[in-house]
Amino acid sequence: MIHEISDLTLRRFPKYIYILRSMQRKGQEYTSASELSRFLDIHHTQIRKDLALTGVRGIPKRGHRVDSLLRACIEFLDWDNLTDACLVGVGNMGSALLNYEGFAQSGLQIVAAFDSDPEKIDKRINNIKVYPIEKLKDVIGILEVKIAILTTPAKNSQKLTNEMVAAGIQGIWNFTPKKLVVPENVVVENMDIYPALAALLGKVRNVNTINPNGPVEFDQE
Amino acid sequence: MIHEISDLTLRRFPKYIYILRSMQRKGQEYTSASELSRFLDIHHTQIRKDLALTGVRGIPKRGHRVDSLLRACIEFLDWDNLTDACLVGVGNMGSALLNYEGFAQSGLQIVAAFDSDPEKIDKRINNIKVYPIEKLKDVIGILEVKIAILTTPAKNSQKLTNEMVAAGIQGIWNFTPKKLVVPENVVVENMDIYPALAALLGKVRNVNTINPNGPVEFDQE
Repeated sequence: MIHEISDLTLRRFPKYIYILRSMQRKGQEYTSASELSRFLDIHHTQIRKDLALTGVRGIPKRGHRVDSLLRACIEFLDWDNLTDACLVGVGNMGSALLNYEGFAQSGLQIVAAFDSDPEKIDKRINNIKVYPIEKLKDVIGILEVKIAILTTPAKNSQKLTNEMVAAGIQGIWNFTPKKLVVPENVVVENMDIYPALAALLGKVRNVNTINPNGPVEFDQE
Repeated sequence: MIHEISDLTLRRFPKYIYILRSMQRKGQEYTSASELSRFLDIHHTQIRKDLALTGVRGIPKRGHRVDSLLRACIEFLDWDNLTDACLVGVGNMGSALLNYEGFAQSGLQIVAAFDSDPEKIDKRINNIKVYPIEKLKDVIGILEVKIAILTTPAKNSQKLTNEMVAAGIQGIWNFTPKKLVVPENVVVENMDIYPALAALLGKVRNVNTINPNGPVEFDQE
């Protein structure tokens, strides 16, 4: 039987991998869906169902071997095979992501970056070359990159998206708050970190404010 | 009249700031709720309502001045006043966040980091000192830090959370997939980037797979 893997299933597996890696580092030999459930916000029956998708079978009364379950989860997401990506916009966020060493163990490899700043062009960041933004289409075409990480300022980001899609990009990891318009066959994952930061800071300030009514006052007529 | 600012309102303002900053860089003088709406996934009536909270008034037929609206939005979130934070766990993600230069313009300043690795302790990353994890409580207490960014491996993260809360932490930005148990007066914002990456890679591979039924096969009996 062949199944399509749902979006929500794909999103849960990195969580299993994270917990299993930690158990492996600690030298833990066995685990179970119930134990994994205690560390995550996922019900154990859901975890059991997900783990069954990997084909790995538990051992009665002992559960799953941590190492073989971890291996099966990584294979399930195909994270051993790196997918090439490019990064567009080498500002603060872009530089941080270029220097981030955690993608390799999650199936992603950034092979090219783009910027419009002459100071940055032809430099290498973490050994990744920064190309001029004018070469976006050519480089994406030559390298046959299918994934783009978007970390540009708002200006031109739709225009750049159109160019990327025309060049063959099929998936965009959008770190900007901008709404991107793409054809139906192109996948966009939005990943804007600032709303969470604003909510966190706003709420903590609210708790601490001297004014018992909240941190921000304003007049409304 | 004094209003409590809702969580969703707090989350929308960083998006306005991002677009307005971009307009300001381009030298654009005026904008409107309708124009902002075209760049964001937010209805213009919602934007109009939000912007009214800042107290800034538009000019009939011209809309809002970009610079004064930007200023009002930054003041609304109080992003001019930096809130101190500490970072717990100087791995790949932790290092990337310590080196990230984008927080300062969003109200956050990391003033201390913690790790258990002797190689990292007492080093400085982007001028932020790494303290031994054993000093977590003391340093948080002395510096009166209220916000913690959690970037540890799964192991011990609940134990560390308990210590942080006991030391006075009121808000945790959780970059791990782990479910954190905290008292009611402590705010947790979860920010796990890997589920989005797994979904993006999974879906793009799905489009590209030679097998028309999907990228992952498995037997289920």
